[in-house]
Amino acid sequence: MTGRHFLQIPGPTNVPDRVLQAIGRPTIDHRGPDFAELTHGVLAGLKKLCDCSGDVFLYPASGTGAWEAALVNTTSPGDTVLMYETGHFAKLWSELAQNLGLKAQIIPGSWRSGADANAIADALKQDPDHQIRAVCVVHNETSTGCVSPIDDVRAALDATGHPALLLVDTISSLGSIPYSHDRFGADVTIGCSQKGLMLPPGLSFNAVGAKAMEAAKQARMVRSYWSWPAMAAANRSGAFPYTPSTNLLFGLREALAIFEEEGLASILARHSRHAAATRAAVAAWGLETVCTTPNHHSSSLTAVFLPEGHSADAFRAVVLKTFNMSLGNGLSRLADKVFRIGHLGDFNDLMLAGTLSGVEMGLALCQAPHRAGGVQAALAHLQKSLP
Amino acid sequence: MTGRHFLQIPGPTNVPDRVLQAIGRPTIDHRGPDFAELTHGVLAGLKKLCDCSGDVFLYPASGTGAWEAALVNTTSPGDTVLMYETGHFAKLWSELAQNLGLKAQIIPGSWRSGADANAIADALKQDPDHQIRAVCVVHNETSTGCVSPIDDVRAALDATGHPALLLVDTISSLGSIPYSHDRFGADVTIGCSQKGLMLPPGLSFNAVGAKAMEAAKQARMVRSYWSWPAMAAANRSGAFPYTPSTNLLFGLREALAIFEEEGLASILARHSRHAAATRAAVAAWGLETVCTTPNHHSSSLTAVFLPEGHSADAFRAVVLKTFNMSLGNGLSRLADKVFRIGHLGDFNDLMLAGTLSGVEMGLALCQAPHRAGGVQAALAHLQKSLP
Repeated sequence: MTGRHFLQIPGPTNVPDRVLQAIGRPTIDHRGPDFAELTHGVLAGLKKLCDCSGDVFLYPASGTGAWEAALVNTTSPGDTVLMYETGHFAKLWSELAQNLGLKAQIIPGSWRSGADANAIADALKQDPDHQIRAVCVVHNETSTGCVSPIDDVRAALDATGHPALLLVDTISSLGSIPYSHDRFGADVTIGCSQKGLMLPPGLSFNAVGAKAMEAAKQARMVRSYWSWPAMAAANRSGAFPYTPSTNLLFGLREALAIFEEEGLASILARHSRHAAATRAAVAAWGLETVCTTPNHHSSSLTAVFLPEGHSADAFRAVVLKTFNMSLGNGLSRLADKVFRIGHLGDFNDLMLAGTLSGVEMGLALCQAPHRAGGVQAALAHLQKSLP
Repeated sequence: MTGRHFLQIPGPTNVPDRVLQAIGRPTIDHRGPDFAELTHGVLAGLKKLCDCSGDVFLYPASGTGAWEAALVNTTSPGDTVLMYETGHFAKLWSELAQNLGLKAQIIPGSWRSGADANAIADALKQDPDHQIRAVCVVHNETSTGCVSPIDDVRAALDATGHPALLLVDTISSLGSIPYSHDRFGADVTIGCSQKGLMLPPGLSFNAVGAKAMEAAKQARMVRSYWSWPAMAAANRSGAFPYTPSTNLLFGLREALAIFEEEGLASILARHSRHAAATRAAVAAWGLETVCTTPNHHSSSLTAVFLPEGHSADAFRAVVLKTFNMSLGNGLSRLADKVFRIGHLGDFNDLMLAGTLSGVEMGLALCQAPHRAGGVQAALAHLQKSLP
């Protein structure tokens, strides 16, 4: 295959060359003097990005590890956690909670919108004894492209006076969709490297507020690798309680420098504009997005139904083979029905134009019923919304 | 600082340029067709390297994570594990076990030799009810430079007829010191990326035999991220249960290719020869190694006492500042008394000559009592033992 691969799954995302080069630098002594500076720098950068005045704990692990970390530091065996099933990833998180011996009280969702704060409020009202230890919400559900209104969930907690912690998965939203740990009132924010942060997978983190740190003191779930207090103690001197993922930290430092250069506001506006252009293309093709709630549309990715009777996986295979582009697959109940276009991370107008062109030509090659002109519609949106 | 940094801590080790370049390649879709080939290839390569006919489960995590994985998959809350305290890292592993709610029955060691198989046999004999679920031994203790005779430990288990599992930490021995999961009769082998495997930190694994897989079915410790069955199910199709550390896997594939090219026998002989040359230098300097048991000397690293009243940390700081070389520090009870020379991974005669020259000049600069001529003695050993 000639030319660059178009990695348009909704993460891992395209990693900027300068980040890859940083990752390819020689490994250094993780107990040496240069390392502490690296640690302090990346932790401060992540705190700023999450807008968290508490602590950030960074793990050599996938996002799934940071899910586990958030739960084992805040709960005790048998505790109940209230989890809103926005889609496949929220479901995986609830299965993880059950694996850990927690009672996952699941609010089923339609998989076509973000979390419904009213449903969460109702569930909290039916828990006058405060058995629910934490409310777990996925900010941007990567399987559906729906965003949950975290501020509304916080308001639901506050209105009912329920003391449960609010744990928010920002794995595919952070750095792509507006989020603030402090302003939204999250207790734990869960994030990882391979989405908006423009890094390969392998790093994940918890941003932790004061109330959650206090809860960690009471929590009786067994924990060692994920333990916040051990991490906090080591981080103070710029160290980690075990060997950190040095080369990915080099990459993180570089990625955070890129955030500083472009500016978060401009990055978020770029994501929003590319998502709107993508939706313009989908509408012009006459196809349907998974998300049906207008103000829940994701700026990170767009999940699209193929017309009934057409295989989304066959379509993705044709696009990969013919145009060297990876699109995301439909997951779980959306398998083979849906493809997902990732437009997050290190991205620009012409990459989006190429991406949507691959989708449009792929639809034609697969004889999937659609109207041409989606690319044209996207370009029109891009032109009229140039920054 | 001009020239290349000498990273002579006993891991993370110097990463070959071609491995760094592999890690710096663009990230790919972890659910795409190329990825399955990558997964199957690296798992087969690790199985071969461990000489394990069972399964290998690879985690996006540090070695500490693989320690935790080995325990949570094989034990139940309150179980006893017999742990031989060969040094700082064995101690950390026993603390981890205690964090997980296990009873760690610790056999104290001198920190100047590997595990004593007779002491393990005695402990097993005093456990007629078979309360001990697992025997945990560190093959190469990175804090002391002492190697434990795993085959003798296996023989002790067999002689007493005790059914405990044998869990072996090969973090700083695999690919540097002869080891065979199958021949040594290990049930779980724990390894990670940043030592003899010549990779940056961030990957770790369990090699698992049939008896341990069977034990995992009965084990009741809560687990999710580390769960072997979930990993086994996903690996079958070349996938992982969650996003793997793609770019480090690129590096692992390249590192395993290097192992094939140089050949494991030749790599192990190289490590043994460099360790012997290093000990020749230490003897010529008139200094004392931490390891006092001749057949327990490590081929990965050499830990050396500075003469009483001299600070090993001050010495290391002088060496770093003057010669751009990182040496390992003394840990825990050896703090400030010991420095450690890593001679494992991607290494050669002239790098060793440079390393030992830095130590010899550093000793002189710090006015630490010693005789000159250590480098000369090492060179003599290298010359007479040229392959």
